[in-house]
Amino acid sequence: VPRPRDAAAARSIRAAAVAILREAGYPGVTIEGVAARAGVAKTTVYRRWRSKAELLFDSTIHPAELGPPPDTGDLHGDLAAVAAMIVADLTRSEARLALPGLLADVAMDPDLHAALRERFIGAERAQLATIVARAAGRGEVPADTDPDLALDLLLGPLLTRALFTGGPETPLTPELGARVAAGAARALAVQSN
Amino acid sequence: VPRPRDAAAARSIRAAAVAILREAGYPGVTIEGVAARAGVAKTTVYRRWRSKAELLFDSTIHPAELGPPPDTGDLHGDLAAVAAMIVADLTRSEARLALPGLLADVAMDPDLHAALRERFIGAERAQLATIVARAAGRGEVPADTDPDLALDLLLGPLLTRALFTGGPETPLTPELGARVAAGAARALAVQSN
Repeated sequence: VPRPRDAAAARSIRAAAVAILREAGYPGVTIEGVAARAGVAKTTVYRRWRSKAELLFDSTIHPAELGPPPDTGDLHGDLAAVAAMIVADLTRSEARLALPGLLADVAMDPDLHAALRERFIGAERAQLATIVARAAGRGEVPADTDPDLALDLLLGPLLTRALFTGGPETPLTPELGARVAAGAARALAVQSN
Repeated sequence: VPRPRDAAAARSIRAAAVAILREAGYPGVTIEGVAARAGVAKTTVYRRWRSKAELLFDSTIHPAELGPPPDTGDLHGDLAAVAAMIVADLTRSEARLALPGLLADVAMDPDLHAALRERFIGAERAQLATIVARAAGRGEVPADTDPDLALDLLLGPLLTRALFTGGPETPLTPELGARVAAGAARALAVQSN
């Protein structure tokens, strides 16, 4: 359990990272600059985030600690709530500022890629695993439903629209989130192994 | 209609690009080096591909001219055939060599991103538009089904697995392609606007 002083420092550090991102863009953010602006030692930053990319993912898209997933009472409702969060996370102005730099860093650094996958994709997988297990308990999906498939069916179309296929006339929207969630719910409900 | 000599030159250029990619990696590929190895002028390369990234996408993932889409007689069959091609395109060894560099280039260069989206995503969208229109003609999907949604439902989970969520224990496989195609077919069949 983080102590109150740690939580306050984390808030200052995240705010400093976002402020520098807005002023200087992704290339202008450094751990040193963030620590100076937040008034903490560099080691305080590194204790929680192992890299600039990890700090910026955490500060602009979603934190590594996601908390319990939505629990609406059925699979479709849960997936719709997660899809709405994904759309919000990917369309927030600071996320749009950070995403290209994050993408480039991850593409060029397999160790960083593995670290972000473990920490952030891991948190997303854990949420989907809880949602799928509850749905299996209610008999909505087969007991052996793969949570990785669930994550890819939900996240994949939205991330692909945000990063690759979307253009000025085909933006990522809450409406697309709702359609993708409905499609994923149906796909998981009747999948066969 | 390309002339036979043009087609032969294009084959030599693509082969030279892949050979240099294998030897020197993405950073080692240059238009100048590819032209020299293929025995053509640089202008011959630029006439068909406006950038190194365009040449490497075309040579390692799929060409800009995709030809007519699969026509199996029903939506599920068509989507399964396209999904199988997407899995093959993203898992081929030269594609795996080129993808991180392509991703980094696209992330850092919005004009390049727009050019690749128009040319390559445009070709994929056109295939899905044909498939969806035929399915609508057979009454399998609503007449106003959005081909962009169809592309994202099919490509999104597979690309996301290949680039982001997939790890050593969760690779992109033909089985995942088949599941995603089945899910997309069901999602499109019963979508409501």
